[in-house]
Amino acid sequence: MYTFSEKSQQLQAKLNSFMAEHIYPNEVAYAEQLHQAEDRFAPLPLMDELKEKAKAAGLWNLFVPEDHAEYCDHGGLSFFDYAPLAEIMGRVIWSPEVFNCNAPDTGNMEVFMNYATKAQQQQWLKPLLAGEIRSSYAMTEPQVASSDATNIQLEITKDGDEWVLNGRKWFITGAMYKRTKIFIVMGKSDPENPNRHLQQTQVLVPKDTAGITLIRPLTTLGYDDAPIGHAEIVFDNVRVPLENVLLGEGRGFEIAQGRLGPGRMHHCMRLIGAAQRSLELACERVNSRSTFGRPISKHQSVREEISKSFSEIEMARLLVLQTSHKIDSQGVPASVDMIAASKTTIPLLVQNVIDRCMQMHGAGGLTEDYFMAEAFNYARWCRQADGPDQVHQMALGKKIIDRYSAE
Amino acid sequence: MYTFSEKSQQLQAKLNSFMAEHIYPNEVAYAEQLHQAEDRFAPLPLMDELKEKAKAAGLWNLFVPEDHAEYCDHGGLSFFDYAPLAEIMGRVIWSPEVFNCNAPDTGNMEVFMNYATKAQQQQWLKPLLAGEIRSSYAMTEPQVASSDATNIQLEITKDGDEWVLNGRKWFITGAMYKRTKIFIVMGKSDPENPNRHLQQTQVLVPKDTAGITLIRPLTTLGYDDAPIGHAEIVFDNVRVPLENVLLGEGRGFEIAQGRLGPGRMHHCMRLIGAAQRSLELACERVNSRSTFGRPISKHQSVREEISKSFSEIEMARLLVLQTSHKIDSQGVPASVDMIAASKTTIPLLVQNVIDRCMQMHGAGGLTEDYFMAEAFNYARWCRQADGPDQVHQMALGKKIIDRYSAE
Amino acid sequence: MYTFSEKSQQLQAKLNSFMAEHIYPNEVAYAEQLHQAEDRFAPLPLMDELKEKAKAAGLWNLFVPEDHAEYCDHGGLSFFDYAPLAEIMGRVIWSPEVFNCNAPDTGNMEVFMNYATKAQQQQWLKPLLAGEIRSSYAMTEPQVASSDATNIQLEITKDGDEWVLNGRKWFITGAMYKRTKIFIVMGKSDPENPNRHLQQTQVLVPKDTAGITLIRPLTTLGYDDAPIGHAEIVFDNVRVPLENVLLGEGRGFEIAQGRLGPGRMHHCMRLIGAAQRSLELACERVNSRSTFGRPISKHQSVREEISKSFSEIEMARLLVLQTSHKIDSQGVPASVDMIAASKTTIPLLVQNVIDRCMQMHGAGGLTEDYFMAEAFNYARWCRQADGPDQVHQMALGKKIIDRYSAE
Amino acid sequence: MYTFSEKSQQLQAKLNSFMAEHIYPNEVAYAEQLHQAEDRFAPLPLMDELKEKAKAAGLWNLFVPEDHAEYCDHGGLSFFDYAPLAEIMGRVIWSPEVFNCNAPDTGNMEVFMNYATKAQQQQWLKPLLAGEIRSSYAMTEPQVASSDATNIQLEITKDGDEWVLNGRKWFITGAMYKRTKIFIVMGKSDPENPNRHLQQTQVLVPKDTAGITLIRPLTTLGYDDAPIGHAEIVFDNVRVPLENVLLGEGRGFEIAQGRLGPGRMHHCMRLIGAAQRSLELACERVNSRSTFGRPISKHQSVREEISKSFSEIEMARLLVLQTSHKIDSQGVPASVDMIAASKTTIPLLVQNVIDRCMQMHGAGGLTEDYFMAEAFNYARWCRQADGPDQVHQMALGKKIIDRYSAE
Repeated sequence: MYTFSEKSQQLQAKLNSFMAEHIYPNEVAYAEQLHQAEDRFAPLPLMDELKEKAKAAGLWNLFVPEDHAEYCDHGGLSFFDYAPLAEIMGRVIWSPEVFNCNAPDTGNMEVFMNYATKAQQQQWLKPLLAGEIRSSYAMTEPQVASSDATNIQLEITKDGDEWVLNGRKWFITGAMYKRTKIFIVMGKSDPENPNRHLQQTQVLVPKDTAGITLIRPLTTLGYDDAPIGHAEIVFDNVRVPLENVLLGEGRGFEIAQGRLGPGRMHHCMRLIGAAQRSLELACERVNSRSTFGRPISKHQSVREEISKSFSEIEMARLLVLQTSHKIDSQGVPASVDMIAASKTTIPLLVQNVIDRCMQMHGAGGLTEDYFMAEAFNYARWCRQADGPDQVHQMALGKKIIDRYSAE
Repeated sequence: MYTFSEKSQQLQAKLNSFMAEHIYPNEVAYAEQLHQAEDRFAPLPLMDELKEKAKAAGLWNLFVPEDHAEYCDHGGLSFFDYAPLAEIMGRVIWSPEVFNCNAPDTGNMEVFMNYATKAQQQQWLKPLLAGEIRSSYAMTEPQVASSDATNIQLEITKDGDEWVLNGRKWFITGAMYKRTKIFIVMGKSDPENPNRHLQQTQVLVPKDTAGITLIRPLTTLGYDDAPIGHAEIVFDNVRVPLENVLLGEGRGFEIAQGRLGPGRMHHCMRLIGAAQRSLELACERVNSRSTFGRPISKHQSVREEISKSFSEIEMARLLVLQTSHKIDSQGVPASVDMIAASKTTIPLLVQNVIDRCMQMHGAGGLTEDYFMAEAFNYARWCRQADGPDQVHQMALGKKIIDRYSAE
Repeated sequence: MYTFSEKSQQLQAKLNSFMAEHIYPNEVAYAEQLHQAEDRFAPLPLMDELKEKAKAAGLWNLFVPEDHAEYCDHGGLSFFDYAPLAEIMGRVIWSPEVFNCNAPDTGNMEVFMNYATKAQQQQWLKPLLAGEIRSSYAMTEPQVASSDATNIQLEITKDGDEWVLNGRKWFITGAMYKRTKIFIVMGKSDPENPNRHLQQTQVLVPKDTAGITLIRPLTTLGYDDAPIGHAEIVFDNVRVPLENVLLGEGRGFEIAQGRLGPGRMHHCMRLIGAAQRSLELACERVNSRSTFGRPISKHQSVREEISKSFSEIEMARLLVLQTSHKIDSQGVPASVDMIAASKTTIPLLVQNVIDRCMQMHGAGGLTEDYFMAEAFNYARWCRQADGPDQVHQMALGKKIIDRYSAE
Repeated sequence: MYTFSEKSQQLQAKLNSFMAEHIYPNEVAYAEQLHQAEDRFAPLPLMDELKEKAKAAGLWNLFVPEDHAEYCDHGGLSFFDYAPLAEIMGRVIWSPEVFNCNAPDTGNMEVFMNYATKAQQQQWLKPLLAGEIRSSYAMTEPQVASSDATNIQLEITKDGDEWVLNGRKWFITGAMYKRTKIFIVMGKSDPENPNRHLQQTQVLVPKDTAGITLIRPLTTLGYDDAPIGHAEIVFDNVRVPLENVLLGEGRGFEIAQGRLGPGRMHHCMRLIGAAQRSLELACERVNSRSTFGRPISKHQSVREEISKSFSEIEMARLLVLQTSHKIDSQGVPASVDMIAASKTTIPLLVQNVIDRCMQMHGAGGLTEDYFMAEAFNYARWCRQADGPDQVHQMALGKKIIDRYSAE
């Protein structure tokens, strides 16, 4: 029904080889380096080695879209053509960074491509594209339901030729990471503006600016996602020059809208890979164990659950591809229905698939001996990322009702 | 991601117009004719009128595949191109017959195209293609789990120049219908053959042959699916000439394999249409009712369920299209994985979507005032048609385990 | 953990014997009488015979509560003690009427006991208790979401010494039944009353009153539930004397509140029986069929689903008993939380259990050869009876949130 | 429907007060002590303080059953009377140890009460009852599906007056804990015995015996459950005197059977508490947050989910109580059906309830700021504890099928 471009197909083949040669064989080593690290948020030597190999293999910045081809060597990829690549990377939680394709940096780099000044790009986008630094996107706040952007409370006020930031953020992915140097911060610069979509502004805040305190790393289901991690941060009279504004005062909401759709799809693409790999692990497992005199693979309930998981993954993959194709051909704003459908369907579906696959592994399935437990956590928190699924379902439901109900 | 051929697109447009002009406005009239019929299994006048209109509109025998183009005027359609047409017909339970596209006749006509002699085609296929007669496919038996073809018990013995049939069948769709003239009957001609796939033979048995008794119409969830219906039939020393064998003695299993895959997909295609229409009805409904001072459409749980239903239908449609495309490009045998995935996923998914949509209609949602209750029944029995889902999941699960488990 | 009173235990034993001797052996006969009936809503001879036997066996009016002991011979039963009896009756859809324990008459008789004048009781309650006539409770309306009683539109106006009724009702259980003689009708007598719970009045309307038209029997999932049935009714200037008011003008809402809680629990009790019997049928079935060389009962997925169904039925039964006990000891108003929990949990749970059990029966499981398909329909429409589950969940959820959230 | 003994009621009141005064207010302090611990598996000072307080309050060894009243001050509690106490302790993951009621020590102490010699009791049971030492039960092995006891591979051979153990165990709860001094080890002493339930023997192995290596702590979903933890252990020519056998050679399976039923129920009881507390937290949460201008508590989907969670917890609690009562009155062997029903129903149900409650908390719901994420992990691994649910469903399903299918 669909075919990927030749470029995408070649990159898929190359990426699969790279995974087989460099990533899967290093999963244990990576886990050990992290376990033994004095600082869990320091860069790992293994990561740096692998990044060099990925660059050398031409597997770098694969996320860069066609209309920003100047930022990559491969000439840019459509959303649709990138999907299978992201799926492959999703088979190992930490592998996207190897290819400079990890969240939140991909989204942030696109923000810089789309909305930053030349100077801002020179200072931050360039080293990001080179994988030398990392970045964070500071939006969510602990005190309010931040899925409603009008709830945002971090204050951004103008004082002379500086912006002054005061507030608290959390779940700021990457902020704990030692390699992270720059935060894109969303706050309210004009809270009384009657148009509630013009109240927000985004500014660039170097991580080492005075007044920033990293309160703590946050965990989800026991995982700290180190070394990238998720941080709680306090901004106490943090001052940056006026030119650090992104796009313009009062245009923060606009940037957020543009950034979040693709980011959600990237999560979905990677989750497909996580589910697919879990299924493959489960198939191997059930053929290698016996209970009560029969290989587990002969139990009908096991076959039914494998069958169900296969079918669900297939549907999930098709939904993601269809959404990607719509974004390519009609743009993000016209695709919000399909993006919401993907965002509210894929993570839960993948969580359930992985739950079954873990269960087929016995008690070991829940441990770090397999990548499944961590992937389960990834799927689970994606149901909260960029707002809980329920918020997106509310919007999508409204849209569908309007579409089909007569005036 | 995908596009239908221009021919398919034109037929879709024409079919949608036909539905709007001739089918939806006649739903009440059709129900009344059936209600008032003296014999619920007699042809309805309205059906005959609509068939003439469909023929005139060039909407006839749309199911005919490209490699049998000689049997239709439109030049044949790929599976993929037929899918959206079947979906549209699925929006009204009884409408496929209007276009000569109803089960089990489509599958039976394909059997005639693929396996019958010229004489057999002349006698039966010709009037079937003209919509003058209808046919049944007699496979399932009440005493045994017929999803395992080796369980079949109807005896076919050779006596002189005749086949003699003895046994009992049930769920023989179309057999009650007055217009039905011919049965394709599966039985065992060589029960001791060590190759259990060579034990079966299929023979053509005119419905009016001596020894055939229509025991009763069967219901599912209270529906008799009149006038087509499902019958229980006894074959008591039923005799037909040896030339009535289809394809050849001992080749019944082979025919069954070839017939059933496409049939399952046709059900899935139509069920997508049933779900889609239910969703549209629900959207209209929730915008036209209020409880506790708010339109139902503003309740968040309603929006969540609409959102979920939209997403599920989208995934289901994509799975059906992807399977159809695989059949087109790789053939049925190579596509059994995707056919099983569709067969075990779509009916249950559609049942759940319709259940939600009925619930949004209040008590009325369960009545015949809407097409949903009958469509719910259709989805439910498809989970049993051609064998319960579990049997197909067992086979698909085994296949997937083998695919991914190392030697 | 719990024990039933000796009286209840004795009645259970007697009722089980009666079912074994008189009901199960007559299921086919009953179905045939109904099939062959000229008028599907006429009383069946078999029913009358069985009622006499039930009376003779002391199995009559088992629903009568202790505080109305004067209306029965057994001295009255607590809700808790009645639950297992209703469960047993629930094993055959039509059997409650045999024991004068069918909906809606039980609820209506309680209304007469609690709210009627002596004269009203003499005229209507007496023959109801004797099983000579049947009754209906006319509340639901087609045009509005009647789960919100303030939506009710049937007008009740006073004209001289008469009430005049104008409006339309549907899903009026029993109204089609030839034996039904009296309707309790809920309408609005004071639609402008600022207290929206004082706008409603209930009046007694003999079925043969001029101006009443039985529009049609309604079906749910294809079932008309004959001979009791559910009707759509028009009231066109229907006139009854003022003394036909129940309890008093403006007190209709109060009566509805008192009536509905116990009625919901009776449905739940019977549904437990329907689920339990389905489970037992499934157990017999899977031990008597083989596929692919093994009895179905040895397939692990079958065992898992039997295990799951057993556990769910056990939980459902405990919830119903706990709710019944709460009603007995604290009254209906204090038990609305548990009544709502039962009403929104049991029907859906039972629907799912029966769905699984039908599936284990192959295609036959959906036919009228088993009682399961009709029981499935019963469970399904109970999710709509007295308002859709969602309305009750909204109220219960609010109550629980208030209970546990700090001021 | 049920009442707890006066003793149980008094203990419940006392325990609730103790939780309010000493446990909830110390949750943050406990987490901090653990975070800052140099050795995550060392006893925490706070735990020792609280244990003294619990002893002083008479809240010690609450699990001790009536028939072992000599081992406690409170005179023993029936299973049924203990259930609400375990539920209360389940509201804080680490609190059972405060009352000397944590797994696996409660089960191990019961093994000592039931099967140990006086000398063994003197040496190990006494300090266990005093809370001075902790213990482990070493059964599960990484290489085999240990839910089938005949798969166990650890070798126990007799050499002179010693048992010699060789093998590998994992998921040995408590083994990492510094306070743990004794392991009860299940192994095969007679692997060729034709009676596969006589092949196993259990021996007492002090943790400091030569040849024991603690390989590593295991995690589930990222949690190490420190300080109690779950260990992987190698036994390499570990030697203990012959008198360290428990009950007798070849009787290991018998002990395992007796131990595991109650242990499963204790998990279920505590999980009810975890679910109940999650529900209460969710109720508070939804009343304190707003999105899109309305408190979250007013969204209908939130109310529906709260309603559903309340109902499910109620059913789960009733199932646990009913099972407990059956164990009290009929013993463990007669109660295996209800124990299996509880074990395969409650953890999954609780996992789903907590999942919903976490979702209502936004991203924070997944962090360690609430006890829910860790409780989610607890529920999840209980679906694997003592064998995956599927194994127990297979056994229960078989039993139910046998019960209801006629010969």
